Amino acid sequence: MKLTKNNLSEKLIINKYFKKLNFNKKGTFNFENDGAYLELNNINYKLSVTTDNISEDIDFFSNDDPKSIAQKITTVNLSDIFAMGSSPHSYILNLLMPNYINENWLSSFSNQLKKIQRKYGFYLMGGDLSKSNKLIISSTFFGHINKNLDIFQNKFNLNDDIWITGNIGDSKIGLEVLKGNILLEPQTRQYFIKKYLYPKPCKLGPLIATHINSMKDISDGLIGDLYDMLSSKFGALINVKNIPLSVNTKKILNTRNDFKIEDLLNAGDDYGLIIISNQKNRKKILSTAYKNNIKISHIGKIISEKGIHFDSHLDMKNIKKFDHFS
Amino acid sequence: MKLTKNNLSEKLIINKYFKKLNFNKKGTFNFENDGAYLELNNINYKLSVTTDNISEDIDFFSNDDPKSIAQKITTVNLSDIFAMGSSPHSYILNLLMPNYINENWLSSFSNQLKKIQRKYGFYLMGGDLSKSNKLIISSTFFGHINKNLDIFQNKFNLNDDIWITGNIGDSKIGLEVLKGNILLEPQTRQYFIKKYLYPKPCKLGPLIATHINSMKDISDGLIGDLYDMLSSKFGALINVKNIPLSVNTKKILNTRNDFKIEDLLNAGDDYGLIIISNQKNRKKILSTAYKNNIKISHIGKIISEKGIHFDSHLDMKNIKKFDHFS
Repeated sequence: MKLTKNNLSEKLIINKYFKKLNFNKKGTFNFENDGAYLELNNINYKLSVTTDNISEDIDFFSNDDPKSIAQKITTVNLSDIFAMGSSPHSYILNLLMPNYINENWLSSFSNQLKKIQRKYGFYLMGGDLSKSNKLIISSTFFGHINKNLDIFQNKFNLNDDIWITGNIGDSKIGLEVLKGNILLEPQTRQYFIKKYLYPKPCKLGPLIATHINSMKDISDGLIGDLYDMLSSKFGALINVKNIPLSVNTKKILNTRNDFKIEDLLNAGDDYGLIIISNQKNRKKILSTAYKNNIKISHIGKIISEKGIHFDSHLDMKNIKKFDHFS
Repeated sequence: MKLTKNNLSEKLIINKYFKKLNFNKKGTFNFENDGAYLELNNINYKLSVTTDNISEDIDFFSNDDPKSIAQKITTVNLSDIFAMGSSPHSYILNLLMPNYINENWLSSFSNQLKKIQRKYGFYLMGGDLSKSNKLIISSTFFGHINKNLDIFQNKFNLNDDIWITGNIGDSKIGLEVLKGNILLEPQTRQYFIKKYLYPKPCKLGPLIATHINSMKDISDGLIGDLYDMLSSKFGALINVKNIPLSVNTKKILNTRNDFKIEDLLNAGDDYGLIIISNQKNRKKILSTAYKNNIKISHIGKIISEKGIHFDSHLDMKNIKKFDHFS
């Protein structure tokens, strides 16, 4: 990795803002080599690996708080690591930086990374810095999980429970608020904006990994991600009243005609987990979530009829898929 | 990783051009999950990890042959993996793609990747696709190496040998040829252009890993990279006549007044290795290189006087450091 270059400003960036993130782990060579060594302490573990890019004008804007950008690049990746039933281990950070990135920005960005690393227990293994006309952050995350465990996204049986963690739609409403499409009183406004700018991953995944059949994080919206999970063999029946919404979201749905639950079913960036498990594990899953203060909702079950079905009428033709790529 | 998105064209890209690169390895889930599992078969091994970005208009141009771009993103990374004394294992590929990337481009790019993967024995573990206004490729590579081995870049002793593999300057001359700054007859012209567009990593690293003290690949130029290696304790004495140059380069230096060896000492992108080793290992290193058809040159030794010194006069003030970052 090019974290050691001879250009003074690059050295300064690394020494002042990124070295503190390697937590003095031996294999990182304190970012003075072109690479790092990675060894799991426990020989019964294997690595899980995931990667995601976020780009200016697509996933965030240039004047967004660097703390929010740090939160987003770590959450999109940690969310996948947790969904693979794994615990965070370390990460690689590639920054493509435009000229507007200054020391204030780097200080705020790296301090937020440090805070998140401390919270979830992982370190920066290395990275690469380049110049660019837009800010692009590409990051590869590593987790660890027992060698004998494989968490699939599309392996389950008829009548399996479908669960989701957290609430649906808060982040999407936050984005609409920022765009000026929804006007709210200050406190509620702040609630939704925070959900959009500071998404949090759900750490339940590794805690229930041995009690589930499939798991995936909700990055592209409940319907889209659930649809990705359903194999050609099965479908899903969703109990609409069980879809978890925050108190603030319910208030908006109850008081406005121009905003419906359909608008939230494919809202991206909530980063809860979709969990599919055998009914016999209900108690275990519920009690683990409860013990860890994680909201979990039993929203439906796997059925033989293909596709996604709802137990009450929804105007599905209005549901547009959320897609980072298009 | 987002290699599975619901957008038809993204699915098409993955299915048609990238799935063939996972070599059916189980942990990749055939790119149908958001992540991959990575397990080394040998419990005596650890992973080495390195990452590099290449960007349009900096490291390549939009009309470059996609085969050349595939060659560059793999060589910059494989070169680091070999320099860490490791053998290639797998990689993650993040593509940020402008609209001009079409199926022809993807076909040519992915076929070249497949060829390189087959040659060096590694597979694609996953990746992420995004849209962008310029083509940016960010890749993280994994190698494996015995747990007990650590290849440093700055650990050596007085009088240690300094070696380099391959030739210095061919790639730089290729770039100057393409820029129109050097005019040559067709065959020599093609020789240099090929060296610039299709750089090759040097696989000697893992073969001599137990017989060296330090190793680094030459990505930013011989002087710059050697300078990075020298600790504050030591310096290097270089025998100028031993610096390896191709026959074609020697011909240029002998016939032109406007191009000197000084111009090549900080030429980037040759991707040979700088190796520092105890004199007692000379025979072993030479015979291993010879057996593997790798050109290796003994160019100097570690001395107590700090800095880089030459045994004949060089006009060093004209040597400008090559830097991908500035």
